[in-house]
Amino acid sequence: MKIDVLSLFPEMFDPLRQSMIGKALEKGIIDFKVTNFRDYTLNKQKHVDDLVYGGGAGMLLTPQPIFSAMSAIEADNQGDRGHVILVDPAGKRFDHQTAQRLSKYEHLTFISGHYEGYDNRIRQLVDEEISLGDYVLTGGELPTMVIIDATVRFLDDVLGNADSAEDDSFQNGLLEEPQYTRPADFQGMKVPDVLISGDHEKIRRWRLKESLRRTYLRRPDLLAHRQLTKEERDFLDDIKYEESLDSKQ
Amino acid sequence: MKIDVLSLFPEMFDPLRQSMIGKALEKGIIDFKVTNFRDYTLNKQKHVDDLVYGGGAGMLLTPQPIFSAMSAIEADNQGDRGHVILVDPAGKRFDHQTAQRLSKYEHLTFISGHYEGYDNRIRQLVDEEISLGDYVLTGGELPTMVIIDATVRFLDDVLGNADSAEDDSFQNGLLEEPQYTRPADFQGMKVPDVLISGDHEKIRRWRLKESLRRTYLRRPDLLAHRQLTKEERDFLDDIKYEESLDSKQ
Repeated sequence: MKIDVLSLFPEMFDPLRQSMIGKALEKGIIDFKVTNFRDYTLNKQKHVDDLVYGGGAGMLLTPQPIFSAMSAIEADNQGDRGHVILVDPAGKRFDHQTAQRLSKYEHLTFISGHYEGYDNRIRQLVDEEISLGDYVLTGGELPTMVIIDATVRFLDDVLGNADSAEDDSFQNGLLEEPQYTRPADFQGMKVPDVLISGDHEKIRRWRLKESLRRTYLRRPDLLAHRQLTKEERDFLDDIKYEESLDSKQ
Repeated sequence: MKIDVLSLFPEMFDPLRQSMIGKALEKGIIDFKVTNFRDYTLNKQKHVDDLVYGGGAGMLLTPQPIFSAMSAIEADNQGDRGHVILVDPAGKRFDHQTAQRLSKYEHLTFISGHYEGYDNRIRQLVDEEISLGDYVLTGGELPTMVIIDATVRFLDDVLGNADSAEDDSFQNGLLEEPQYTRPADFQGMKVPDVLISGDHEKIRRWRLKESLRRTYLRRPDLLAHRQLTKEERDFLDDIKYEESLDSKQ
């Protein structure tokens, strides 16, 4: 997969290289390039922003440097600028399904702004607007890295362990059950006996039930979107009864 | 505000220092420290993770290094470990209101894991679990930076322009209207005449209407949570009519 990013702060993307993306780069699974669109300004002062038409606080990114940088990306890729993503709070909310869908593209290009906003004409270049959520950030660099990280995990051979992506939260529509590692007793806090029992069927049932319990208590909306098996429905009945006793204590 | 982070990859937090946090650090508004909890392991090999009890792929972070690193933070802060946040997909969804609420704490401490998960006993240290959304990332570093960035924006004197935070999306419950900067004509794409008219009242009305239009088209859920003025209700009626004509063409 080719990943292009347009950004005024290329060095902010270094963490990605240190992380999983770094491994994917080494393996040749990803070709990752950050272009500083300030290099494409046509004015002598290298300004990339200007005052807002109609008045108001702050500055906006002007169209010219971003349009020119995009043309350079097209020239580098046989006329293909990739699937262009604008990271913006007005975009569609990013989620697991979006990450999986984006991972199918051969070429993704992110416009990652800073400062307060874009000239609206920049949207002419954009295929898709994505938001991380209802909050405002200093720049698009962090959300762009989040989207890339979540997306690249779906590429074949990126995760060291092929099982890992399957086991993740959201893959099966439930939150993960509580997990434990050694020691069995840490400062008096003990690992549940069943996990040390060696009884695989008991462990499987415990995990499924506790995964359902956590989802029921924290994210009942996920259960509403999921087809439950007979075993899961029975566990859920038990959980509702148990939790109703808990809340009466 | 004091911000502590427990992480295995302190250098991944460098982008924050380059951004707004850097300015807040210079001004003395924030004291930001990343502690590598690998430095607190008691085993010779400096391992921080171990196999999952009950079997399964992947590794989990063991409790000891994180508990010990937290004790060191307490010792550094007169017994105060701050408001402890675990970044986890099973947590409560992060949003504008959460950022504003977190900005009121004098001391925030983030547990920012990597690999696949935590030993559940680590939750004994945690005051609040926060999720960025329904997707899985390689590590907690990026979401921790997102939460810090969004939160620090609410601190007094962090944003250069006092008006900026007020004007942001979500501050008034609507998406921002399309914005434009120079040139007035870019490759044939023109700035709407009204914005160049100099008529402040017309500009105000255009902006409010287009802000309502974008919110109506993209995020009608935001309108449902907002008390509309008479002017806004009238605009919204116009918009619904205009958009119904558009969709018939």
